[in-house]
Amino acid sequence: MSAHPPRAQVVVVGDEFLVEGRVDRNGPEMARILSEVGCRVVGISVLPDELDALSKGLEAVLADSTITLVSGGLGPTEDDRTREAVARALDIPMEVDGAVESKLSRRSAARGGGPAPEGARRQASRPRGAQLLPNLVGTAPALVLDSDRSLLFLLPGVPEELERILVEEVVPRVRARLGERLRPIRHRSVHVFGLPESRVAVRAAELRTAGHTGFETATFPGARGVRVRFSARGPDPNFLDAQVADAARNLVELLGPRRSVLLPATGGLAEAVGEALHERAWTLAVAESCTGGLLGGRITETPGASAYFVGGALSYSDPMKEDFLGVRRATLREHGAVSEEVAGEMAAGVAERTGAETGLAVTGVAGPGGGSDRKPVGTVCIAAWIQGKVRTEALRFPGSRERVRRASVDAVLSLLLEDLQATAAPKP
Amino acid sequence: MSAHPPRAQVVVVGDEFLVEGRVDRNGPEMARILSEVGCRVVGISVLPDELDALSKGLEAVLADSTITLVSGGLGPTEDDRTREAVARALDIPMEVDGAVESKLSRRSAARGGGPAPEGARRQASRPRGAQLLPNLVGTAPALVLDSDRSLLFLLPGVPEELERILVEEVVPRVRARLGERLRPIRHRSVHVFGLPESRVAVRAAELRTAGHTGFETATFPGARGVRVRFSARGPDPNFLDAQVADAARNLVELLGPRRSVLLPATGGLAEAVGEALHERAWTLAVAESCTGGLLGGRITETPGASAYFVGGALSYSDPMKEDFLGVRRATLREHGAVSEEVAGEMAAGVAERTGAETGLAVTGVAGPGGGSDRKPVGTVCIAAWIQGKVRTEALRFPGSRERVRRASVDAVLSLLLEDLQATAAPKP
Repeated sequence: MSAHPPRAQVVVVGDEFLVEGRVDRNGPEMARILSEVGCRVVGISVLPDELDALSKGLEAVLADSTITLVSGGLGPTEDDRTREAVARALDIPMEVDGAVESKLSRRSAARGGGPAPEGARRQASRPRGAQLLPNLVGTAPALVLDSDRSLLFLLPGVPEELERILVEEVVPRVRARLGERLRPIRHRSVHVFGLPESRVAVRAAELRTAGHTGFETATFPGARGVRVRFSARGPDPNFLDAQVADAARNLVELLGPRRSVLLPATGGLAEAVGEALHERAWTLAVAESCTGGLLGGRITETPGASAYFVGGALSYSDPMKEDFLGVRRATLREHGAVSEEVAGEMAAGVAERTGAETGLAVTGVAGPGGGSDRKPVGTVCIAAWIQGKVRTEALRFPGSRERVRRASVDAVLSLLLEDLQATAAPKP
Repeated sequence: MSAHPPRAQVVVVGDEFLVEGRVDRNGPEMARILSEVGCRVVGISVLPDELDALSKGLEAVLADSTITLVSGGLGPTEDDRTREAVARALDIPMEVDGAVESKLSRRSAARGGGPAPEGARRQASRPRGAQLLPNLVGTAPALVLDSDRSLLFLLPGVPEELERILVEEVVPRVRARLGERLRPIRHRSVHVFGLPESRVAVRAAELRTAGHTGFETATFPGARGVRVRFSARGPDPNFLDAQVADAARNLVELLGPRRSVLLPATGGLAEAVGEALHERAWTLAVAESCTGGLLGGRITETPGASAYFVGGALSYSDPMKEDFLGVRRATLREHGAVSEEVAGEMAAGVAERTGAETGLAVTGVAGPGGGSDRKPVGTVCIAAWIQGKVRTEALRFPGSRERVRRASVDAVLSLLLEDLQATAAPKP
């Protein structure tokens, strides 16, 4: 039994990620699932639709991988070349599955879309030896090519089809095939307030000096605070979960609860805020200016957020700040819309008007326009209101409009989390 | 002079994209910029921090690339192995730049973070022959390795540092080095309503039969409608811009303005909505339930959105729908919160209360919980209100919570865009 987990690679096929700046989400999701199952993922590759470049890219990947997941390029159009490129990369001939071809032709005819014979034929072709996987949602036939040396899956690019086939087909087959060689990985993170990354790394290293081992740490600087991730690999996922949770709790003990928060097993700052609110049976409302909804969107990513999130106001214009949130005209006039004073009134206003125990507000200059000498692009004022007490901060973030807005969301969640740490949670 | 543009590849270094499911945005952005400048990007690779896997992955990439951009792994910590991995992949020795080392040590000491001698030494090391690039924002020294055969950039992973160095250092050097071989690519897209993707592809192909050439088309099915992308490559970007815009306009002419909209040169549905509102000097307000802010967040991605977006309400709870939007209790009771009737009242309510000419609303069951037989997970009701007239639709989207919410945003923007097409725009 080897101590090294099997090497895995993930491939995403699609020109739109290469020429248009579109962000791929399938690759990271496939890689995460393979890591969790117990593979060591050594690469995600995004490759073009074009046959030569695709088969060349696949050849390089397949030469260095035991498990390979390829997503996309299985449709009926001329641009769908994944099957052919795999055959070329592995030097296997193509075959046509007559039964699949006539089934696809019938289905296409039944839809009234005409017979589309080339499309059906293309989708019914496959590298010799590939087996059809039941594709439960869509129409693109998924394939598996299981050889002595490696296990290769060709999967649909449509995310909802991919999600389901990963869980229902790919994971069970990887487990069945590689069972004892798999080494699942588990993570747990701590969010640390008010210390620079280098100091946090030093403190995390002290855990090891104190005799705690069996995990690795990594630090990630955030908009307001640093995340420390603890990771462990091994045969028993339950043991690993306990191991990384212990390590993370030890860091929180070392730094103190005013300085650090154990993040939930899945999710980040928004989920930690949700847990803290849930423990206190409190609710949250938000008032957003420059983030325009991103904060609410982030909070409601978590299923079940309606238990603590009541909603809020997108006060993108000054009249909205006055009418919907009760920000005083005098405050707007004296301090300007981007000010700690206005942020504080926004947070108080949205909490009071919705009856929530906590309120958050963001107002800032996201750019690229709208900056001034006193308030340059990137200036953001945030506020957290908890049962009548408000705390505000003025921050400045570098980078593009998108970066400033994302950083603002993280920062205001971190502010609330820090303040919630300072208010007693009821004992469970 | 070769007709083929130079092959380029992009590499992103970081374990967090491989094990935690984090989505990388640096890779697509670097690829987009290289395509725009005139390279043919044949791959984006995400590689781990670990030296063996990283150098092996880099070796495969560098064997097949004229221009290579690598982002990440240039920091001062033990996990920052990009410099070393490149040296190993290219079989070049490492050197230390004494001047850089002492500068970094002084800077570190000045910050009070201690001397951190290993970190400074690591950041001052580089593969022999690599030149330092001015890094204008941060501290991670960026490098360029210019050989007869290829041009390799090692760039910071921090997005705001990367953004700036791409524009100010990388693009000018690629242009200077490859000038005449570059073949910029340009795109323009059309959003089509109410036709299946296969029909849209057939209609787009008719343009060619009608004698229009010099571009390629690709179709992308959306939540409500299909996007057709026209692309062209050539030496003269201005000519290309005109060429793809002409092709796109020809499709709109073929399908008619009730069936199709020319999307702006940059951006998608939200930017098209912004343009249409701007032409009419109208404003927009939104009322969001299951999307929780994503719609507002999407609209305000566009710089200058405050010219037409006034804001809105996140009515995540029923009381919010009544109090902030004036949805009638009877409507909620009779039809339920997820209904076309409630969506319609939300859209009307938010527009009337903010004085906007147009209002949008979304209410739905994003899942994974909350579904019922009559309203299963994925059921979403959307509404567009324009100056007193409201149109609603009930849709059902497959997939995860995240997918349902993203699709809802696209769908409601498409609904408004379609309705705006049907209302006369003032002649410019």
